[in-house]
Amino acid sequence: MELLAQSFHMNKAVEGTSYAKNSSIQSKIISITKCITEEAILEVLCKNLPESMGIADLGCSSGPNVLSVISKITNIIYAKCSQSGLPKPPELRIFLNDLYNNDFNGIFGSLPDFYNQMKEVNGNSFGPCFIFGVPASFYGRLFPSNSLHFVHSSSSLHWLSQVPPELDVKASTAINKGHIYICESSPQNVLDSYYRQFQKDFSLFLKSRAEEIVPGGRMVLTFMGRRFMDPTIEEGCYNQLELLAQALMSVAAEGLIPEEKVDTFNTPYYAPCPEEIKLEVEKEGSFVMNRLEVFEIDWDGGSAEASNTVSMGRRVAKLVRAVIEPMLESQFGSDIMDYLFQRYEKILDNHLSKTRSKYINLVISVAKNSEGLGN
Amino acid sequence: MELLAQSFHMNKAVEGTSYAKNSSIQSKIISITKCITEEAILEVLCKNLPESMGIADLGCSSGPNVLSVISKITNIIYAKCSQSGLPKPPELRIFLNDLYNNDFNGIFGSLPDFYNQMKEVNGNSFGPCFIFGVPASFYGRLFPSNSLHFVHSSSSLHWLSQVPPELDVKASTAINKGHIYICESSPQNVLDSYYRQFQKDFSLFLKSRAEEIVPGGRMVLTFMGRRFMDPTIEEGCYNQLELLAQALMSVAAEGLIPEEKVDTFNTPYYAPCPEEIKLEVEKEGSFVMNRLEVFEIDWDGGSAEASNTVSMGRRVAKLVRAVIEPMLESQFGSDIMDYLFQRYEKILDNHLSKTRSKYINLVISVAKNSEGLGN
Repeated sequence: MELLAQSFHMNKAVEGTSYAKNSSIQSKIISITKCITEEAILEVLCKNLPESMGIADLGCSSGPNVLSVISKITNIIYAKCSQSGLPKPPELRIFLNDLYNNDFNGIFGSLPDFYNQMKEVNGNSFGPCFIFGVPASFYGRLFPSNSLHFVHSSSSLHWLSQVPPELDVKASTAINKGHIYICESSPQNVLDSYYRQFQKDFSLFLKSRAEEIVPGGRMVLTFMGRRFMDPTIEEGCYNQLELLAQALMSVAAEGLIPEEKVDTFNTPYYAPCPEEIKLEVEKEGSFVMNRLEVFEIDWDGGSAEASNTVSMGRRVAKLVRAVIEPMLESQFGSDIMDYLFQRYEKILDNHLSKTRSKYINLVISVAKNSEGLGN
Repeated sequence: MELLAQSFHMNKAVEGTSYAKNSSIQSKIISITKCITEEAILEVLCKNLPESMGIADLGCSSGPNVLSVISKITNIIYAKCSQSGLPKPPELRIFLNDLYNNDFNGIFGSLPDFYNQMKEVNGNSFGPCFIFGVPASFYGRLFPSNSLHFVHSSSSLHWLSQVPPELDVKASTAINKGHIYICESSPQNVLDSYYRQFQKDFSLFLKSRAEEIVPGGRMVLTFMGRRFMDPTIEEGCYNQLELLAQALMSVAAEGLIPEEKVDTFNTPYYAPCPEEIKLEVEKEGSFVMNRLEVFEIDWDGGSAEASNTVSMGRRVAKLVRAVIEPMLESQFGSDIMDYLFQRYEKILDNHLSKTRSKYINLVISVAKNSEGLGN
C-alpha cells in the first residue's frame, strides 16, 4: 500500500498530457451528480446546523475540478443559510485529500482566485473558511473522530490501495498474462483476487469514515462500476484497460518492451457492481444507504472537442493517459510512453468505429447512523 | 497583502540555489532554540494532557527543516508520555503553514519517510498523527477557535505581510532611494513606515493566534531582530540588505537594470527589538511572556563548508539568494540574477574581510492566558 501511495498520482504540470487539462470525464460526473450532492448537504444542514462544518473531498486530485467541487458545495451551504434567514453560515473547515504525490501546489496556487470568487458570489463577509491539504491514503484514518459533516469523493474509489497481491509484479506466478485487469476470459482466481482486494479496501474506507463522520453526517461517492454481478460479461467495464493491454502486447511483440513485463503488470482498479457496494455498507453497519444510482458516460466524457478534427480515439487515449501514465512509467519506463499511446489511439479508433462504448458509473449517497449503531 | 502572498516564496526545486539546500541558518536557529521549544511543550503537557493536541508550524517553508521540526516536537511529546507512564500519547493534529506558493509538494512527498522514522523512534503503535497543509498567510486567521495547543514559527516573522505602503513600488515618491531596507542614513519617515507595518502585522498575528490557541497553550517564535531601540545604529541588522542594495546599485550603474527600479524597490522585512515585541504582546493582552532571548548567529550559520575552498561571501550570497531571489526576480527579471549575485558575493567578501558580522536573532516563548483575559 505504501508503494502505491508513493508512485500513484495523476499526471502533473500543465503539459498536453496533464490530468489538469484532461479531466473532462471527472468534470462531467461531478455535474451529473450535483443534485445528489446538494440533496445530501441540505439533509445535513436541516438536521442540525453546526457552528463549524467539516467537509472533505477525498481523492481530490488536481486541476480545475478540485476547487469547482468546493465552490459548488460552499455555494449550496451559503444559499441555504441565506434562504433560511440565518444570521451567519457555519464556519467551514474544508479538507482536500489525495496521495502524497498529488500536485497540491497547483491547487494551493489557485486559492487566492477561489477566495475572490467566493466573495463575489457570497458577499464580502464570506468566511471563515479554512482550507487544508491532507496528503495521505483514504484507505485509513485521515481525520480526528467525529470531525466531519460531509464527505465527497468523485472518480477515486475505483482505485484500489494496491494491485491485489496475487497479481502484483512480485507474485511468484503471472496469473493474468497478456491482460492488465479483468477481461472476458479471466479465470476465477483473477476475479477472486480483485474482489478480495476491493472488499478489503472499501470496508477499511467505510470503517475509517465511520469514525470521522458525525452522526447524521453524509457521504456522496461516485466511481466507475458495472451493472451486473459477473464482471466478465459487461465489456464497458473492462474494455478500455483490455484495449490498453492489447497496445502493450503489440509494442511487446515489436520487442520494444519485454512481454514478461506486460504479463506481470496489473492495474490497481476495480469496478464494483451495486450488490458488492451494498454488501460492504451493510457489513460495516454505520451507514444507511439513501441512494444508489447507475449512469452511463461516453468514453470521451461527451467532450466538446467531439466536432473537431481530433479523432475520438485520440481524445480517449489522452484522457486515459492523464490518469494511468505514472503507473505505466514505473513498469515500462517513460521513453516508450508516446509510442505506446499512439498505438493505443489506433486501437481505440478501430474499436470505436464499430461500437460506441460507455463507462458505467455508480453514485451512492449514505448517511451516518444517528443512533450510534455500528462499529 | 494578497500580492505578496502570491509572489513571495522560497526558491523551489532542488537546484543549487534552492531554499531546501540553503537553509543551514534556519536549521542552526531551530537547534539553538530546541530547549525553549521543549520547555514550552512540557509546560503544555503538564498543565492538562489533552486527548487531541493541535500543533502548528507557521511559515514552515520547505526543505529538510520542516519535518525535522515536527520530528523534534513529536519525539518530545512521546518521550514525556512514556516517562510519565501514560498509557497513550495524545492524538496529534499537525498543521504545516506557509503562503500559497510554498513548495508543499516537496514536504508532502517526504511524509512516508517521516512516518517510518517516527515508528522507528517511537514504536510501531505510533499515532494517530494527522498532518495537514495550510496554505495561507499567518497574518490572519488560519484555524478554528481554541483548536491549537502549541504554535512554532522559526525565521518567518521578520517577513512583513507587505512592503510598507509608503515604500511600495506603487508609492508616488521614492523615499528610500538607493536602499532596500533601513540603513544607517535612513530618514525618519522610512523608519516610521517600517515600524507601523511591523506593528500592524505582528498585532494581527497575535490577535489571530489568541483566538486559535487554547488557554494555557504556548507559542515559541524566533525571528531576526536587533538589540537596540534605534534601528540605524546596529549594523548587523541591516547590513546584509544594505550590501545587496549596493550590489543592485552597482549593476544599475552599468546600465543593466534601471536605477529607478532600485529606488522604488524595498524589502517586506523588519528586524524588531525586544521592546517593540514586548509592547505588542502587552497591547494585545492574551499572552504572557515567559522568555525573550537574544542570540547571535554567523552570517553563514557557522556552515560546515567553512573550511572548504568556498569563500564566506559566496556561502552567504547563496543563503540570502535562496530566500530573496523570488522577490528580486519580480522586480528586476530573472536574467540578471546570476550576475547580480556574483557582484553581491564580491561585495560580501570585501565586507567580511574587514569585519565578522553576525545576525541578531530573538526568540520568545509566550503562554495564552488561562483566565480568559484579553481580546
